[in-house]
Amino acid sequence: MEKKLIPENELFDIEKITKNLRSKIIGKKIHYFKKISSTNSYAKKLIKEFTDEGTIVVADVQTQGRGRKNRLWHSPFGGLWFSIILYPDLPPESGMLITMAVSISVAQAIKETTGMNAKIKWPNDLLIRNKKVSGILTELDASSYKINYAIIGIGINVNNKINDELKTIACSLKQENNKDISRIKIFISILENFDFYYDKLKNKDLDFIKKTWLSFTNILNKKIQVTENKKVIEGVFLGINDLGHLILDTKFGEIKIITGDIKYL
Amino acid sequence: MEKKLIPENELFDIEKITKNLRSKIIGKKIHYFKKISSTNSYAKKLIKEFTDEGTIVVADVQTQGRGRKNRLWHSPFGGLWFSIILYPDLPPESGMLITMAVSISVAQAIKETTGMNAKIKWPNDLLIRNKKVSGILTELDASSYKINYAIIGIGINVNNKINDELKTIACSLKQENNKDISRIKIFISILENFDFYYDKLKNKDLDFIKKTWLSFTNILNKKIQVTENKKVIEGVFLGINDLGHLILDTKFGEIKIITGDIKYL
Repeated sequence: MEKKLIPENELFDIEKITKNLRSKIIGKKIHYFKKISSTNSYAKKLIKEFTDEGTIVVADVQTQGRGRKNRLWHSPFGGLWFSIILYPDLPPESGMLITMAVSISVAQAIKETTGMNAKIKWPNDLLIRNKKVSGILTELDASSYKINYAIIGIGINVNNKINDELKTIACSLKQENNKDISRIKIFISILENFDFYYDKLKNKDLDFIKKTWLSFTNILNKKIQVTENKKVIEGVFLGINDLGHLILDTKFGEIKIITGDIKYL
Repeated sequence: MEKKLIPENELFDIEKITKNLRSKIIGKKIHYFKKISSTNSYAKKLIKEFTDEGTIVVADVQTQGRGRKNRLWHSPFGGLWFSIILYPDLPPESGMLITMAVSISVAQAIKETTGMNAKIKWPNDLLIRNKKVSGILTELDASSYKINYAIIGIGINVNNKINDELKTIACSLKQENNKDISRIKIFISILENFDFYYDKLKNKDLDFIKKTWLSFTNILNKKIQVTENKKVIEGVFLGINDLGHLILDTKFGEIKIITGDIKYL
């Protein structure tokens, strides 16, 4: 029997991770749980007691992981489920840019660790061969002009099994790559990448973020369909503006899309 | 002894208020307290149990009222302290516009009720003769692309005494008007006015909000100084953009100001 170099039950050695991490802010403090309801919910508790910027909550299993619109996010053993705590000195409209910086970091980490090209699906998913491999949930607490804190929940199907009913729309890195992948390598790579992009964001280098983000999409100049609140609109994807909104060329002219579910045509 | 038409200890008759209120959404449900820690904090609790949009929390006394940057807001008997709960189907960058719509509503209510001209001081105060008479604290809970809920805390010095140490910078309506003012009349007027402006906001009639807002400032084309995080910038106030940011003409060119404390020069 072939010896597995990276076992499916690979365990988190937090001390080793923090020691090897090359980052300025992100991941200097990591809270690890074998099982938790939701890493974002625990992050919210930590913030109330006050915790440093860049603090991470990571768990092997989430029993009540959440996605966009309060959809349940299935988070069994073998996947990577964690949250990042930030106190960005930025206005509320930067929320989407934070999500974009995280998306880039996850896509690059997948590339560095597995060689696979994950594509960013606006606003907050990553796909491999058109199936969802990762989702990002950014939660903001803000006044009208300033974010007080942001919690970014990141879920990645690494080695975990995909539920039968999700198999047509979701995949895992293991399944697409035909071998076990190190959750820890991806984890470290995301933290280091995001440390870099978050710094760019704080220095208002939005063009750099936007350019990198666009390099990870595959819809530039392609026709897409956006659905929100039963309204459906079709158009050619022209790019994103400084707030992370989609710019679509439609039969009604150029339209800005703030949120919605997109479908490739 | 002269008979007082409006007594200082005027009491809230919530049943009567809701019966007479001409609004579509705002104030259909009102929670009243003689004393509470903070109406915004109680509003947050109500949201967790779920409450309708437009629900109000009002109190005679707040023991821990808060202003911007967690500054304490002195909230003794005689003033008007309340919060409005909203679930706006708007992106996080609309937070400032909500604050603007509330500012207009408060300024108009003061005008209708007392005849006095309150001026809006960006971002969230109202002044009479350059002294603060009201403050607005908008708190947002959002994802990166959508506000989940907004709680707007409104504090107005109506008939309450102003602390000695605040007398050079703060005032009450009673003091400026030389007679008691009905808290309830102002309260009703704010709710009805905001019902109107919130509807404009939801219908994306930003130009109307901006125009009305500008009519209540007295700094258009005047020189002001903005301080934020020890950075100071001077310039001529040119207006506000669609996100509620200040546009200043400075020696470095046109500059957009997102937050800060402004001073008239």
